[in-house]
Amino acid sequence: MSKIYVAIIGAGGVGKSFISQLNAYVGRIRNKHTINTILISRSSKALQSKDYSGINLTTWESDLSGGGGGKPPAFPEETLKFLTGAPGPVILVDNTSSEEVAGEYPRFLSAGVHVVTPNKKGFSGSLELFQAIYAASAGQNGNGGYVFHEATVGAGLPVLSTLRDLQDTGDEIVKIEGVFSGTMSYLFNSFAPLSPTGSEKPFSACVAQARELGYTEPDPRDDLNGLDVARKLTILARLSGLPVSQLTSFPIQSLIPKPLETAASAEEFLDGLAEFDNDMEGVKAAAEKEGAVVRYVGSLDVAKGEVSVGLRNFDKGSAVAGLKGSDNIISFYTRRYGDRALIVQGAGAGAEVTAMGVLSDFIKVLERLK
Amino acid sequence: MSKIYVAIIGAGGVGKSFISQLNAYVGRIRNKHTINTILISRSSKALQSKDYSGINLTTWESDLSGGGGGKPPAFPEETLKFLTGAPGPVILVDNTSSEEVAGEYPRFLSAGVHVVTPNKKGFSGSLELFQAIYAASAGQNGNGGYVFHEATVGAGLPVLSTLRDLQDTGDEIVKIEGVFSGTMSYLFNSFAPLSPTGSEKPFSACVAQARELGYTEPDPRDDLNGLDVARKLTILARLSGLPVSQLTSFPIQSLIPKPLETAASAEEFLDGLAEFDNDMEGVKAAAEKEGAVVRYVGSLDVAKGEVSVGLRNFDKGSAVAGLKGSDNIISFYTRRYGDRALIVQGAGAGAEVTAMGVLSDFIKVLERLK
Repeated sequence: MSKIYVAIIGAGGVGKSFISQLNAYVGRIRNKHTINTILISRSSKALQSKDYSGINLTTWESDLSGGGGGKPPAFPEETLKFLTGAPGPVILVDNTSSEEVAGEYPRFLSAGVHVVTPNKKGFSGSLELFQAIYAASAGQNGNGGYVFHEATVGAGLPVLSTLRDLQDTGDEIVKIEGVFSGTMSYLFNSFAPLSPTGSEKPFSACVAQARELGYTEPDPRDDLNGLDVARKLTILARLSGLPVSQLTSFPIQSLIPKPLETAASAEEFLDGLAEFDNDMEGVKAAAEKEGAVVRYVGSLDVAKGEVSVGLRNFDKGSAVAGLKGSDNIISFYTRRYGDRALIVQGAGAGAEVTAMGVLSDFIKVLERLK
Repeated sequence: MSKIYVAIIGAGGVGKSFISQLNAYVGRIRNKHTINTILISRSSKALQSKDYSGINLTTWESDLSGGGGGKPPAFPEETLKFLTGAPGPVILVDNTSSEEVAGEYPRFLSAGVHVVTPNKKGFSGSLELFQAIYAASAGQNGNGGYVFHEATVGAGLPVLSTLRDLQDTGDEIVKIEGVFSGTMSYLFNSFAPLSPTGSEKPFSACVAQARELGYTEPDPRDDLNGLDVARKLTILARLSGLPVSQLTSFPIQSLIPKPLETAASAEEFLDGLAEFDNDMEGVKAAAEKEGAVVRYVGSLDVAKGEVSVGLRNFDKGSAVAGLKGSDNIISFYTRRYGDRALIVQGAGAGAEVTAMGVLSDFIKVLERLK
């Protein structure tokens, strides 16, 4: 029975859910593995088990906010030293969205530390970092750590694992397309539903409502600029073999009207957005004319080497048009599956399902260490 | 660089596709693993590499039909002896649909042989066999072989792997439902399409057409009796913790009219089926009255402990109703995903995609052996 050591950086929404799921998991597999969590760190405070004996995953939160927390080890040097000093394999779980942490994955992997993470930064930033991460990982040589990041696309949905299975078994990816943002999904499913009731609100009101319900970032422009979707497409494109050099090297349609990019606050932005409602009504009406609905999608054509993110009309009978709520849908068109796609669909955001994606990656590492 | 040994039983449609995909795979990973295929056996003839040096996966078919083939080793004794004599880990790929082969999985697993298979018999037959297989496998103790059978449900679609991820990470399966048969999918998508054109054919004509296009078994009753769907539901139910004792321990709606069960031939059956078209028209009309379409589905309610297979009406806006062609759809309702399901959809039959499911399982074993 081997001992595995775990370091968790980031203990916000996803991090908390992850720790809670990990705690339950450790209980269930007690007879097969011993899992010692040796670090839980937030920006300014951390629990650190300096003798590697393990942190209590049931009381960690009160321990951390109470007297038990200390200064986190400096990143990366001190952290790396602490992790590589562990008397067994170490899995680093990065639940932050930090570029700084992601930038050090290659070093951690090269040192044999395994990395699992929902943090998109390492995979959707510079192509150099993406390549350095994979070059340092176990996939390329026998010594590096494993890296898994299922939750960077579609949270807990089996997206990257499906892509990998298709590729590993020799299928060819022709096209990947879908709705990759719960926010965009909710927005367009309410703005331009498949079966309109006539009481649909203008676009700006839909945005305001989505914000009230917590479906958007505090400033909705962080969703409407399309960058979150573009990050996911960048990851899928690179994993499909397209060397997308950076996030902005393909067309990203922003839904923020130019004059409102500089609005001082989210409120000011929302007030101004109503003036542009006619534009979006026009887009919606044009789609309806062709028996379609408008949706915000990402699309990746491997053969043509094209990636794009923005509005597109979908036939009312299509799976994308039929999406509901804030669900994501990802369609894989491949040589083997032919004209009809392999489709994965469901909630693609939320702390619980994102943490589930991270934990299933964590388990994948464990299975390889066994 | 470790050497892995492979024995392939069954070299028909799926078996051939698997060998071709395996051959390509072995070429791609030449630098990481050495994979020696030591047995390819058909019912009466086999290629066997008695010195474990490996069979040529490019020329195997002509080698087998030409002078190279011999009598297969007797099953199970001689085969087991041959496999356990290999100087490294052995993966047994069972591409048959044989009960006899499946019945011996526990012995092979106990002897440390890993099993991957699209053969439903071991998992949908007696509960004792199902339990013996899992008890002998690596999941339960440290010594047995791994067993993977993704392709027993939905061919290459990520169904069992998704179920396992949900369970391993502590989610609770509430309900699983969907269309689990390409034949039934095609039949009802043509008999009762979402958007009728008015030129829909009677049910018997749809069955005849599906047969001509190769979507049914030679005798369509082998699809219409619902047993194939029931086998898949039995597998999902057991993996979800419901101890379904046998295939017939839950309601299975057969679409074969009683008087035709004994029809002497497929042709006689099809001739007779037209007399029952009015019944199916009635079923279709009743669904239309409630704004729904009728579909042949399998459903599994974990909380209630209920499994059922048969016709059901689906709201026209639902994902099941929107299915096209001969696609499968599998919806997982879980505690975490709440009211909206995690959905996997796509081609669920065909040699290429079934072989892909088997090969991705094969790779999962390899990753664990590394």
